[in-house]
Amino acid sequence: MTDQDNQIGRYSYVAEPFHVDFEGKLTLGILGNHLLNCAGFHSSDRGFGIAKLNEDNYTWVLSRLAIELEDLPNQYEEFTIETWVENVYRLFTDRNYAILDKDNRPIGYARSVWAMINLSTRKPANLIELHGGDISEYIVEKDCPIEKPSRIKVTSQEPVAKMLAKYTDIDINGHVNSIRYIEHILDLFPLEKYKKGIRRFEMAYVAESYYNDELSFYVDELTPSEYAIEIKRNGDQIVCRSKMVFNS
Amino acid sequence: MTDQDNQIGRYSYVAEPFHVDFEGKLTLGILGNHLLNCAGFHSSDRGFGIAKLNEDNYTWVLSRLAIELEDLPNQYEEFTIETWVENVYRLFTDRNYAILDKDNRPIGYARSVWAMINLSTRKPANLIELHGGDISEYIVEKDCPIEKPSRIKVTSQEPVAKMLAKYTDIDINGHVNSIRYIEHILDLFPLEKYKKGIRRFEMAYVAESYYNDELSFYVDELTPSEYAIEIKRNGDQIVCRSKMVFNS
Repeated sequence: MTDQDNQIGRYSYVAEPFHVDFEGKLTLGILGNHLLNCAGFHSSDRGFGIAKLNEDNYTWVLSRLAIELEDLPNQYEEFTIETWVENVYRLFTDRNYAILDKDNRPIGYARSVWAMINLSTRKPANLIELHGGDISEYIVEKDCPIEKPSRIKVTSQEPVAKMLAKYTDIDINGHVNSIRYIEHILDLFPLEKYKKGIRRFEMAYVAESYYNDELSFYVDELTPSEYAIEIKRNGDQIVCRSKMVFNS
Repeated sequence: MTDQDNQIGRYSYVAEPFHVDFEGKLTLGILGNHLLNCAGFHSSDRGFGIAKLNEDNYTWVLSRLAIELEDLPNQYEEFTIETWVENVYRLFTDRNYAILDKDNRPIGYARSVWAMINLSTRKPANLIELHGGDISEYIVEKDCPIEKPSRIKVTSQEPVAKMLAKYTDIDINGHVNSIRYIEHILDLFPLEKYKKGIRRFEMAYVAESYYNDELSFYVDELTPSEYAIEIKRNGDQIVCRSKMVFNS
């Protein structure tokens, strides 16, 4: 094993019964949950995890996520998520993923962009200087053959759905959790759309929302298989933007 | 290790970040998910799992669940679920659980009641005769110091919430999944209730609901910390009943 191999985190899962949809495929919310957990394991194992950072009064914040899929694991199938750091900039780091099926064949890739913020000031940390530049040692050159997260623009002024943020939406920081936004967005689309499968999904996290906030969902249909989505809180503040591309 | 010990399934978990609530405690929906998965692992390992049963055209159906808690695991803490078969009757089997914290101290128990049905006829199987009575060999005498699931009665005629069953609600069988009902019930209560913690929670699964069904939620406040809940589909058909007891 080379040094580079060692820097790629590998985590194996099984697609549990309550984690698959009506087609028996792992849902994207659960996949997102696993991707974010893998980021946590991978950075913790290398001294950059939330627990260590919290001691130093810092935390990771997910800014963008793009997932592109050929397929998703079926119920009871094993699958593996690989994750590695592609780039470290002053204020952001790019973390990539490969999703491997039970035969270790890649069935999807993901790209994510993270910032680190100071918990007291909420200001971003300088990643290059942090820990004397240690984080840059974890950069791996490995192919991630999908496009970077795009700029998402939504023009619709009429929400297609509204809801109040409830108990199961809220995480330990008092925010609606990153995965719940994904699940609420999935629920905007009818079952038929999922029969063809999801080809690409993007999230851009813009601002936090809180318990009892009214979340409004705005959708632009770009093509019959491609949608841009925006979630606002309490009428006007943009919380996140998303793009959903189904197989056509 | 005695034979009896060997018949108790033990499964260890970590309370993941997106699986804990605003207090940093594992949510009850996730605990329910783990309990049901453990039933699956335990029965599969002993030749009574869904995969084996489906071959023979049978499946397990959860009828009742009661969970009683002193505490719940905190974020990033390890915990263990033990499960065993308490009784096998002609049409039902009682499966119990203990929830152990990171120090292997019991912090909760659960009781569940399952039936097995024929997938073609939807009629219940005779569990005592099945596989020549093999299942009875797995009965374990182990203490489960909580009351059995109770009879739940709801009188309210005015729903407190209504929703349509959506994509993320639906499982591989086309039904709203057992865990989503729990999550929707949790979301009926304000955040403040959860600060004191949940003492006991019960579910009685009565009938299936389906994609796009309108689910209505009826709640009787029995005391300021005790509630009986009923979910109906499309106005009149009872889907499940639940009881929620918060610490007072």
